[in-house]
Amino acid sequence: MNPYPTLSGETLVVPILGDPIAQVRSPDGITRNFADRGCNAVVVPLQVAPADFDALIAGVSRSSSVGGLIATVPHKFGLVAHCATLTDRARYLGSVNVARRNPDGSWHGDQVDGAAFVSALRAAGGVPEGARALQVGAGGAGSAIALALLEAGVAELALHDADPARRDALIGRLRDRVGDRVSCASSPGESPDPAGFDLVANATPMGMRPGDPYPVDVTSLKPDTFVGDVVTKPAVPPLIEAARQVGCRTSTGGDMFVSVAGLIADFLLAEGPLRSTR
Amino acid sequence: MNPYPTLSGETLVVPILGDPIAQVRSPDGITRNFADRGCNAVVVPLQVAPADFDALIAGVSRSSSVGGLIATVPHKFGLVAHCATLTDRARYLGSVNVARRNPDGSWHGDQVDGAAFVSALRAAGGVPEGARALQVGAGGAGSAIALALLEAGVAELALHDADPARRDALIGRLRDRVGDRVSCASSPGESPDPAGFDLVANATPMGMRPGDPYPVDVTSLKPDTFVGDVVTKPAVPPLIEAARQVGCRTSTGGDMFVSVAGLIADFLLAEGPLRSTR
Repeated sequence: MNPYPTLSGETLVVPILGDPIAQVRSPDGITRNFADRGCNAVVVPLQVAPADFDALIAGVSRSSSVGGLIATVPHKFGLVAHCATLTDRARYLGSVNVARRNPDGSWHGDQVDGAAFVSALRAAGGVPEGARALQVGAGGAGSAIALALLEAGVAELALHDADPARRDALIGRLRDRVGDRVSCASSPGESPDPAGFDLVANATPMGMRPGDPYPVDVTSLKPDTFVGDVVTKPAVPPLIEAARQVGCRTSTGGDMFVSVAGLIADFLLAEGPLRSTR
Repeated sequence: MNPYPTLSGETLVVPILGDPIAQVRSPDGITRNFADRGCNAVVVPLQVAPADFDALIAGVSRSSSVGGLIATVPHKFGLVAHCATLTDRARYLGSVNVARRNPDGSWHGDQVDGAAFVSALRAAGGVPEGARALQVGAGGAGSAIALALLEAGVAELALHDADPARRDALIGRLRDRVGDRVSCASSPGESPDPAGFDLVANATPMGMRPGDPYPVDVTSLKPDTFVGDVVTKPAVPPLIEAARQVGCRTSTGGDMFVSVAGLIADFLLAEGPLRSTR
């Protein structure tokens, strides 16, 4: 049996747009997810430089065979302008990583990165409800994860970022939305101390390069702390390795990206042309 | 084992452009051909109306993941303008059904419909070299087939078309190229008589609809006449059924379209980015 849908003239196409794109694995994973759910659609990679992005989207949007769009780095912000409608979280974050067709053919965008982090955390036994959380990283991924943690019921979220201005900007935006559940974690230049937190989230690339410092002071980790990381390479990042040695439950960037793929498929199949192929 | 290439970020994409596109079968067939030959590329359908064609091509051309383009009705003429270079036959016919990247990223177009008719004819035992051929139909497919038959060595080609002006225009263009090997087959309104011909080619849609007249007078068919047809539905068109009853060797539109798929794959894999994936 073919694990992909059989390609035909009726197959819907979902390009994934990135620069670079060669490293992505989701064309295989999401296409298999479609096939498992009886949907005749295929995810294909489209390498595209930022300068060419708008013309590419304008072009592929002309074809009704293109039933969805997926954006990865650096196009998650660029795709917003091509969406006529957005989910609440995508509008708040100013970022879109998946879009499906509205009934009039225009694009409806969502941003599932934060929900994917929370989903991976739950799958590994983490419990956001009522938790005290320490998050490192206030960039694009960090914004999405902070919002998702707060929406999932985190009681307090302490934020750290090497750039205090970026940290404070995110804190301000989150406080406008959820009030004083958000605070500043630490002084600049210091490694934040996870003592007293139930959840620790690394939303920075720290751990990708050999010799990177830990994003938090791992000597304070306790076995009942849950530690999640967005780093995908190495598959077990140094923070996760240290947390596992202490006995913590953990989720990795790889776990998160499996969840991203599942949530993207869910969004594309919930409404619109891909749903109609089932 | 997966009969398709495993989709990855490095997979090359070859859209097939048509209006309508839902009926095409080549996404499956050509993608399997790629996989058989170790090429990591996938053919996907793109429905696109003529008014949207130029913007779509301009858009998809921006992505280096798009390693080739395939055009079907009505876009074979529209694709010519997007090709920086053309094969001799594509330039002569003013029609392109497949394009691959030049080293500078621009498109190089070919038109393989005529070669596919000849290939299907040879596979079924037909011999164009030195043959006297009667062809009905002087439109787009007819022009490609007439040129290919003459290039394959047909000694004399007699042309018929219900529209005498279209017939004479093609005769004139072919004579400019090959001289007096081309002639007029018959009077308008008459069914051409295949008596004395070695090959009979139907390059019209006659036989698709119930009640269509035969494109030639089938009562004159002899067992040693080869009869080829472009009609794909029904799978055995009435002309082919009549020819087989007489004992003729035959090739159908279905046979031709299998050959089209093979020649398109050959062209895409001969040079350029798809060749590099092997």
